[in-house]
Amino acid sequence: MDNSGFYNDNYSSGSSDDDLVDLNATAQDLLEDLPYDEQDNGQGYSPGGRGQNGTAKLLDLLDDGLHRVGTYDDFNTIDWVREKSKDRDRHREISKKKKDSVLDLFLSVSDAFSGWLLMLLIGLMSGALAGGIDIAAHWLTDLKEGLCLNGFWFNHEHCCWDSRETTFQERDKCPLWKSWAELTVGVSEGASAYVVNYLMYVTWALLFSYLAVVLVRAFAPYACGSGIPEIKTILSGFIIRGYLGKWTLVIKTITLVLAVSSGLSLGKEGPLVHVACCCGNILCHLFTKYRKNEAKRREVLSAASAVGVSVAFGAPIGGVLFSLEEVSYYFPLKTLWRSFFAALVAAFTLRSINPFGNSRLVLFYVEFHTPWHLLELFPFVLLGIFGGLWGAFFIRANMAWCRRRKNMRLGHYPVLEVVLVALATAVLAFPNDYTRMSGSHLISELFNDCSLLDSSQLCDYTSQVKGGAMNANLSSGLSDRAAGPGVYTAVWQLALALVFKTLITVVTFGMKVPSGLFIPSMAVGAIAGRLLGIGMEQLAFYNHDWSIFRGCSSSTKCITPGLYAMLGAAACLGGVTRMTVSLVVIMFELTGGLEYIVPLMAATMTSKWVADALGREGIYEAHIRLNGYPFLEPKEEFEHKTLAMDVMRPRRSDPPLSVLTQSGMNVEQVEAVIADTSYSGFPIVMSQESQRLVGFVLRRDLVISIENARLCQEGIVGASQVLFTEHTPAQLHGGPPPLNLRSIMDLSPLAITDHTPMDITVDIFRKLGLRQCLVTQNGRLLGIITKKDILKHMAQMTNRDPESILFN
Amino acid sequence: MDNSGFYNDNYSSGSSDDDLVDLNATAQDLLEDLPYDEQDNGQGYSPGGRGQNGTAKLLDLLDDGLHRVGTYDDFNTIDWVREKSKDRDRHREISKKKKDSVLDLFLSVSDAFSGWLLMLLIGLMSGALAGGIDIAAHWLTDLKEGLCLNGFWFNHEHCCWDSRETTFQERDKCPLWKSWAELTVGVSEGASAYVVNYLMYVTWALLFSYLAVVLVRAFAPYACGSGIPEIKTILSGFIIRGYLGKWTLVIKTITLVLAVSSGLSLGKEGPLVHVACCCGNILCHLFTKYRKNEAKRREVLSAASAVGVSVAFGAPIGGVLFSLEEVSYYFPLKTLWRSFFAALVAAFTLRSINPFGNSRLVLFYVEFHTPWHLLELFPFVLLGIFGGLWGAFFIRANMAWCRRRKNMRLGHYPVLEVVLVALATAVLAFPNDYTRMSGSHLISELFNDCSLLDSSQLCDYTSQVKGGAMNANLSSGLSDRAAGPGVYTAVWQLALALVFKTLITVVTFGMKVPSGLFIPSMAVGAIAGRLLGIGMEQLAFYNHDWSIFRGCSSSTKCITPGLYAMLGAAACLGGVTRMTVSLVVIMFELTGGLEYIVPLMAATMTSKWVADALGREGIYEAHIRLNGYPFLEPKEEFEHKTLAMDVMRPRRSDPPLSVLTQSGMNVEQVEAVIADTSYSGFPIVMSQESQRLVGFVLRRDLVISIENARLCQEGIVGASQVLFTEHTPAQLHGGPPPLNLRSIMDLSPLAITDHTPMDITVDIFRKLGLRQCLVTQNGRLLGIITKKDILKHMAQMTNRDPESILFN
Repeated sequence: MDNSGFYNDNYSSGSSDDDLVDLNATAQDLLEDLPYDEQDNGQGYSPGGRGQNGTAKLLDLLDDGLHRVGTYDDFNTIDWVREKSKDRDRHREISKKKKDSVLDLFLSVSDAFSGWLLMLLIGLMSGALAGGIDIAAHWLTDLKEGLCLNGFWFNHEHCCWDSRETTFQERDKCPLWKSWAELTVGVSEGASAYVVNYLMYVTWALLFSYLAVVLVRAFAPYACGSGIPEIKTILSGFIIRGYLGKWTLVIKTITLVLAVSSGLSLGKEGPLVHVACCCGNILCHLFTKYRKNEAKRREVLSAASAVGVSVAFGAPIGGVLFSLEEVSYYFPLKTLWRSFFAALVAAFTLRSINPFGNSRLVLFYVEFHTPWHLLELFPFVLLGIFGGLWGAFFIRANMAWCRRRKNMRLGHYPVLEVVLVALATAVLAFPNDYTRMSGSHLISELFNDCSLLDSSQLCDYTSQVKGGAMNANLSSGLSDRAAGPGVYTAVWQLALALVFKTLITVVTFGMKVPSGLFIPSMAVGAIAGRLLGIGMEQLAFYNHDWSIFRGCSSSTKCITPGLYAMLGAAACLGGVTRMTVSLVVIMFELTGGLEYIVPLMAATMTSKWVADALGREGIYEAHIRLNGYPFLEPKEEFEHKTLAMDVMRPRRSDPPLSVLTQSGMNVEQVEAVIADTSYSGFPIVMSQESQRLVGFVLRRDLVISIENARLCQEGIVGASQVLFTEHTPAQLHGGPPPLNLRSIMDLSPLAITDHTPMDITVDIFRKLGLRQCLVTQNGRLLGIITKKDILKHMAQMTNRDPESILFN
Repeated sequence: MDNSGFYNDNYSSGSSDDDLVDLNATAQDLLEDLPYDEQDNGQGYSPGGRGQNGTAKLLDLLDDGLHRVGTYDDFNTIDWVREKSKDRDRHREISKKKKDSVLDLFLSVSDAFSGWLLMLLIGLMSGALAGGIDIAAHWLTDLKEGLCLNGFWFNHEHCCWDSRETTFQERDKCPLWKSWAELTVGVSEGASAYVVNYLMYVTWALLFSYLAVVLVRAFAPYACGSGIPEIKTILSGFIIRGYLGKWTLVIKTITLVLAVSSGLSLGKEGPLVHVACCCGNILCHLFTKYRKNEAKRREVLSAASAVGVSVAFGAPIGGVLFSLEEVSYYFPLKTLWRSFFAALVAAFTLRSINPFGNSRLVLFYVEFHTPWHLLELFPFVLLGIFGGLWGAFFIRANMAWCRRRKNMRLGHYPVLEVVLVALATAVLAFPNDYTRMSGSHLISELFNDCSLLDSSQLCDYTSQVKGGAMNANLSSGLSDRAAGPGVYTAVWQLALALVFKTLITVVTFGMKVPSGLFIPSMAVGAIAGRLLGIGMEQLAFYNHDWSIFRGCSSSTKCITPGLYAMLGAAACLGGVTRMTVSLVVIMFELTGGLEYIVPLMAATMTSKWVADALGREGIYEAHIRLNGYPFLEPKEEFEHKTLAMDVMRPRRSDPPLSVLTQSGMNVEQVEAVIADTSYSGFPIVMSQESQRLVGFVLRRDLVISIENARLCQEGIVGASQVLFTEHTPAQLHGGPPPLNLRSIMDLSPLAITDHTPMDITVDIFRKLGLRQCLVTQNGRLLGIITKKDILKHMAQMTNRDPESILFN
């Protein structure tokens, strides 16, 4: 991997067979057997690899070296304080110059507005991509069932556009749309037609899933999964080069369409966040301000993740709160405002593309506005409990499966795994109407409240009043309905779908294709909710005399099964992701009114409490831990009463900390310290005896600077003194000229005392975004604590394996 | 002022003539002529004030003293790190015990749920209070105009409830409601009736305003103003005892009703935030967890301020975002979720009280849903520019007036000032319909889109089609309308109202009555918007042939003046308060749809940019600065390139820092250091020579501990050694027993190096909520930086008077 840019895409060239797990394994190998775990993965700094062909290359290298000072290696954590400070310096520079000339003033103004322009571009690009993905996925999904005679590029709905306007009831049957059975064997009904359709469905599913997994593995291994765990980690300051690159974007967009269309039990909502973040990261390259600063870039990515949810659900405010609550780490108010702008732009771009064909912004539009009764809060809370239990079960089962996958033989053949799961999904899903349709279609069907003219199976109610069905229906209103045979069939099918969806999603999430979890978990919840809703409805119908159903007997409608489905969906999603405010707001934006916000709160709150009682982590945190990323959870409180001296390195039995002195060491000695140790940085002290702290220097900067100096600065040899002092004496005792490296020294390293409680230390790390912190005792430097030390300590305190934290 | 509790109300007893400005003046006197400005306002610690009457009092004092260690003085800043650490200790204690017995488990669970219970109570109480305030203010406002014959406790609307249902058009004229003229002189029309009504209107206005200001001054001086600047400061960690006490709550609630009813140009929205925060603070006393911890209490107050906005506008999500964006300082995610819950409870409590009489949640319900045209963005941006300009103008004018008031003679007679302003307001407002009605009534009138049956002056349109007016109107639809004479009159009256409202609000905001700024500024903006809207409408009507109005000619409605009014209101409110996301979301919740969110964004964004270009501060920040509160603005970046050593005390020319040594000083010496200096705390070093930092001790804790030890610990005399070491030697050379005070020492004071850039230092202070920070140079203690030093430095760097920062 080269270091010429951030997040550069180098998968198509060299290491195209790596995927995330392999990379982890590589990194793990690298990290093994090193003390303090403070390594630098800096490849290519070995002396001797250059210097042959003259000054041109040398100058290049010098330039390169100067640029590289202050950058980071792959799989390392950034220093937020330094990055933000760098940005403030840059800003100060521009502000100071602004009065000099008109050009500088213009530069200053354009600098101030570049953030807004960037947000606009991210919104436009993500909105357009999301629209494209929606349209393509619709078309490919319908392709599994049939073809349009007007042109193969029409999906079912477009194809039947004309016929829809004339016959409302039979809108699914239009002459131009032919199922595969009609096209091949010429019949539309009967066993042979069923078999042909079944076979075609399975074939297309296998083809799409195979294409998806092969594309991901061949071109962009990072394109798999939902991406949210990695984005959370990146936003907290980690660097994974290529994770948000252009190849990942292209491949993820294509394979997302394929994976969704293949009928696998996955959604496109999570991956859309990844897609939006890729857009954000790529567009950052247009502006120096964001290209060169890792902290500023992360502000943009926070906004981009808001954009992702905004386009996924058509919920801009919910998207911003999702970014704030779920994924972001550093979220200043300025970012809040900009995220909101970008989320709106994206939502409107998507609406103007109009992929849902109804000129509505939201994914699931809910049309019912019937009031709910206070006593219904009891079944709502039941749904919450179900959601919490299901969420906790899902996380455990999925974690167990993911761990098992690593050890299983099948885990080494991801293509085969995907194809097998797709085969199982397609074969089992086809016979059941509710599993055959796409997840989002299923959810909107379940959310739907039966209107009088609705012909779906779920709305097959018989009226108690005997007589002409339609009229009777009309006369008795919608309030008084007994379930017809269709509803009973639907109940059975839904119950089977519930079990099937749960099991198949456990094995699907975590495979090597883009896979989101929002839609599958919402679908499960919606099924459970609809079932409970139908049950309640029939209970109310057959027991009008019960006091709790007293209010139902008259003309007002009593139970709305669609509302139960909605609450069930929210509860399951909440149980899996542990979202709270953002979830309620997304649902609020879907329903567009405050009527159902109390039931929503009741269901999501219960769900979160129940799930938290069974396991603290949401699915994303669990996957972060599984992958060993260095993520300092901002929500979790550190509960234990340990002190900084219990966590810092070196431990009591270890040799003392490797430090550099501010004077008195020569280049050779410094290089020896670098070669002997693998720490990512060295404290600089007054002298070995006093151990008074002067500053801190990063290994990477030190290595690069010494190399540069040896190459380009006259007279720097191994015996040259290395100084970190303010004043450089001209010549020391006639020896070689000294090398003053004060410029690369961090003069303001944060130091805490050894008695600082760890809860405060964790707070300092989190809030300031530190990478390391020095520990002093009565003014003497005693040790160092890195983010990784803290994470290992936290793992230890909760009886987890501290070695599971892989990166620094 | 005593120190027996936090925020206790002692204004009814002793210092009832103090008001906020007087208190400031007192504090300022106290602070004068002290070096380093590190004072402690601790009154009542002078030795000799007690000790006469025996052990009972002594034990009381001891107990009191032990409790007082770790508390804060009035007008001081809390240490967030310490408070949060204290709370974690408490939590750890409870968690540890939880396995011991069933009772402990119950205590642990009840501790976990006490936060939710508290939120529920705050929501219920604030909702109920807001409902009561609404009802009472409606009634008193109508009392200025007349009386209901059915019973004097009915307001105009209630009184006419029956008649309204029969005659729609003349709903304002019902037989039971009598104007004062009808009641006294028996005529309802003509000059004499007008004069009688005028006189009664003015009389009531004077009475209400007089009562309001007298009540405020007599019982709760802190009840005046909007309260938001002070709440922002309190949330950032400042202590103002009594500001959120029960007297303030009672008096603010009563006087708010009176002030609003008096017709003064003020609103109840800002003060409702203060009322909700009072509820929050008072209810905190029910739970030890919140009563005893200043940081936890501030989390509750953050949620309470969300509740305030939620009940003010009926916008729960907007309220939460308002709290997040505008007032809160430390807002963890847990608080976000709880605020949301509390805001919802409050909104639903308010709705069940139903003060607006329409079972709607929102204050201004907007009914139009006509689309807007892309070209209209130009006038929308114009409204934004107007809002920004008006906001910047208002802030400057109000600040100038507030500063002038302090020096003017009138400023010393606040009662007279209020009565005079009320007189001027009433006399000038009565003749103009649009100023006579209450601010919120005016705004809803302006937001209203004219329906066909609307009889108001603003809807007096004539149809181009000659013929029966009503029919013609119907046939030509609403799209094609020329303004009638009523509209032209309204335009003139509105223009006058605009000027009047602007000028009178400048002098009103900051008077010694509860006064909010939301409604007056929204009213001004709504007037401006409506005027522009009518202008655009007529332009479109008379120039159908212009290409930009091409789309208007047909049946669709072209320009919605009500929408312009809404955007104008948002723009002006944004210009004054610099709210962004929360403003858009509040407006979104009022309109209940995403249709107008792009115009809203355009208007508020422009408004904020324009206003920011003319002055960085919003009105609340300006008032904070005016009052000299120590508020470290979290939004503003520190731009200058100074270092910690430029800011720390002592300066280069000053005598060295007063420190204590960890051993070697006796009680008398320590007391001498305390007496000689006025710092609020002392660093503890190894020895005077080495200046190696060991810890930090607060003056208050030190004074209390020494006093306690002298009183209760045997053998502690002036010559006793004071130790801060880990081990206490039994007896030192036969002298008196030593006093070990390590327990009150902060073992983990944060120290930064003298080379730390100030931007990083400011960041550390903000993010960790520090009160002070020690500065070291090469491991030696060099100085100290307090929050006040930083604020003074920031004032200096922006050419403001550093002495304007009054408190520590």
